Amino acid sequence: MCESNVYIKNNGTETLVMENVAAITPCGENRFLLRGLLGDSQEVDGTIEDINLMAHKIVLRAQ
Amino acid sequence: MCESNVYIKNNGTETLVMENVAAITPCGENRFLLRGLLGDSQEVDGTIEDINLMAHKIVLRAQ
Repeated sequence: MCESNVYIKNNGTETLVMENVAAITPCGENRFLLRGLLGDSQEVDGTIEDINLMAHKIVLRAQ
Repeated sequence: MCESNVYIKNNGTETLVMENVAAITPCGENRFLLRGLLGDSQEVDGTIEDINLMAHKIVLRAQ
């Protein structure tokens, strides 16, 4: 499976926001809707810092 | 494998930019560096429109 874990980076520290994210869609200015495999979802503020599909890791930078 | 194909959307039409992208990193204002599995890379202008990891598809919106 190709879900990724999404982290938010703030002052150099990465914090896990949501695991097994299946889709990411912008839902406002510097805001993203994260959707999981099971229909769970969460909105998070930030900008894209790095998407590493091999590592299953997406990092957003806090605003 | 979890690489994705990256498309650019312009006036509603999606055009394939690069296949088997392993990593995406911002490299300027509304500009992204796409890196492939084999070390190939390409820069593309746009903003994130949708990331669908299950479909292995990432869509950027042309500026």
